[in-house]
Amino acid sequence: MSKVGIVAYGITPFTKEDQKIETVLHSSANKLFQKNPSIEKKDIDGVLVSTNNNSKYLAPVLSEMVGIQPKIAHSIESLCNSGTNSLVSAFSYISSGLADMVLVSGAERYDSPGQILEWDNSRGEFKHPIFWASIFSKSYKRKYEITDEQLATVSVKNHKQAQANPNALSKKTYSIQDVINSKKLTDDLRLLDCSRPCTGSASIILASEEITKKNSENPVWISGIGQKTISAGFTKNPSLTSMESTKIAAQSALKMSKHSIEDVDVAEVHDAFTVCEPMALESLGFTSPGKGTSMIDDLHKTNNFKINPRGGLIGTGHPLGATGISQTIEIVQQLQNNAEKRQTDKANVGLIHNMSAASTSSTVLVLEK
Amino acid sequence: MSKVGIVAYGITPFTKEDQKIETVLHSSANKLFQKNPSIEKKDIDGVLVSTNNNSKYLAPVLSEMVGIQPKIAHSIESLCNSGTNSLVSAFSYISSGLADMVLVSGAERYDSPGQILEWDNSRGEFKHPIFWASIFSKSYKRKYEITDEQLATVSVKNHKQAQANPNALSKKTYSIQDVINSKKLTDDLRLLDCSRPCTGSASIILASEEITKKNSENPVWISGIGQKTISAGFTKNPSLTSMESTKIAAQSALKMSKHSIEDVDVAEVHDAFTVCEPMALESLGFTSPGKGTSMIDDLHKTNNFKINPRGGLIGTGHPLGATGISQTIEIVQQLQNNAEKRQTDKANVGLIHNMSAASTSSTVLVLEK
Repeated sequence: MSKVGIVAYGITPFTKEDQKIETVLHSSANKLFQKNPSIEKKDIDGVLVSTNNNSKYLAPVLSEMVGIQPKIAHSIESLCNSGTNSLVSAFSYISSGLADMVLVSGAERYDSPGQILEWDNSRGEFKHPIFWASIFSKSYKRKYEITDEQLATVSVKNHKQAQANPNALSKKTYSIQDVINSKKLTDDLRLLDCSRPCTGSASIILASEEITKKNSENPVWISGIGQKTISAGFTKNPSLTSMESTKIAAQSALKMSKHSIEDVDVAEVHDAFTVCEPMALESLGFTSPGKGTSMIDDLHKTNNFKINPRGGLIGTGHPLGATGISQTIEIVQQLQNNAEKRQTDKANVGLIHNMSAASTSSTVLVLEK
Repeated sequence: MSKVGIVAYGITPFTKEDQKIETVLHSSANKLFQKNPSIEKKDIDGVLVSTNNNSKYLAPVLSEMVGIQPKIAHSIESLCNSGTNSLVSAFSYISSGLADMVLVSGAERYDSPGQILEWDNSRGEFKHPIFWASIFSKSYKRKYEITDEQLATVSVKNHKQAQANPNALSKKTYSIQDVINSKKLTDDLRLLDCSRPCTGSASIILASEEITKKNSENPVWISGIGQKTISAGFTKNPSLTSMESTKIAAQSALKMSKHSIEDVDVAEVHDAFTVCEPMALESLGFTSPGKGTSMIDDLHKTNNFKINPRGGLIGTGHPLGATGISQTIEIVQQLQNNAEKRQTDKANVGLIHNMSAASTSSTVLVLEK
């Protein structure tokens, strides 16, 4: 399989602004081109748009807005991991030889229709993601004797880390008691346990090996890809305390990259809710089952930004279609030693974990210098 | 680039039925698996859904319905050529080595939101496709001195050919006078000049060379792919009497397949409106500018099914996300000498032309035995 690299990125602050989806989408692509004036738009073969927005034909719309006449132009949707699905699709267009350079732009408005799982009747009328997250939280706490305070640490850590991310939605830090005292949404979830929907956009250009080397002094390569869909409905999930699709995706991605999880220096994991972070760390293989919150507590106490350096979904906000792309940009910045106050030590191998709908689907990417 | 073949297909009648999108989507995938019991669902690496429907997470939903746990699962949208965009994406997943076998299912309801070009302000409030088609019709008739009767022949021919297609929406034939006398929608368009939105679904499985040879006695290969997006908005179209994106896509697809247009024995072209068929034939290179209606008239008089054997979009109906896939199935049936009353002579090389939004985007595929 031929090598595919990341040659450019653009990202804008995540907000609660009420902007047209075309404006949101354009903002990060425009930033990308402003930062990388040497990229010739005529050389871009593909434009993929990652979004849950209902507007149609957004890839040609974005192409016209930025001045590209691509061969390949379409939207991609798979709820919360639309972004990494789009990156993998761009990878395949390049790796197959159908394209040499592809722009992937993700965008979402704060009122995204992807936030309600209309198709999933497994929890009756309780179709908001807080209900699967609540079931996960109760099951995980019960099985491993984890307290609400231990889960709250995820929120405390990620809000803290987000303060080093100028694009993050959250501008505040919180104590464990603040999380516990925040508005109770279900028996097992408080407001500060949840990532927040927002308006945001993130863009990346992927390219063939030759173009990547020509355009980037400090190239980052996608060396591992793993994806898995177990089901659409929550009740087909084989476990309520681990992420089965994540396990399979991680194994595939690590195998493809010829790395083990111990080689990973920095990772973005999909903390849609506090319980997701320890579950993801365990399913990815960073730690053993039930030990995720201990690992998080250790990182938090030592001010180690290894996991979710930009503040995760909880601190940064969760604009569905842009999330996987913004996670990937964070890992690129880390590997390029360009993450400023969020920079982790010796970041040579990075990992992205992006999932949908109670981890019924997962994508894992491995990036390296 | 490694070879990618078509190993199975399933299609159901196009109707005006009011069914849930999940039911529509499942119908053709289910038909495919019923017809091909030897295909092992566990070997399917990807499920791509082509649709303009606003429902989310349809690829995992379809996967669960048919019993697949794929690596790759997402929806693809690019208005009326979503179907061929999905096939090209599946091709790239296989050709890159990320997948060996991919199910592509397209589905739409009669009330698809892709039928109104909400984003395109080029014609003011006149956002229905009949308005661009009306401008194309007036321009084409004026430039080449073509009569309404000559354009009506497209509708007469395609409705006639649709009578040999058991899945077609139209169950009637019409005379030129019937077309001229049908309800006037604009100065230049009558009701029978237009394809009709409908409820329909079509599924195809693409596979690597090895799997294609193992699974199909009579394999068909995708040997040429060409795609181009010129713009999103109608007014950026460089011509009102030809399809510029189609010209570029056709040249790329023919070059990749190492064929010239003279080698093409049978073709599906995107006759969303009568004027589109002669314009497409000219832009694809089948005939010279202004000669499309003469070619169509000759085919019609000699009962030659070479162009749009299944009845085109006008005779078969136009369920947006399913159209490109159903066009491709027709060419597969033709090349496999399996098209019954629609069968054309010596069909060795076939072509599919699928476009979006006044041909601002086009896809051209070349298929061969």
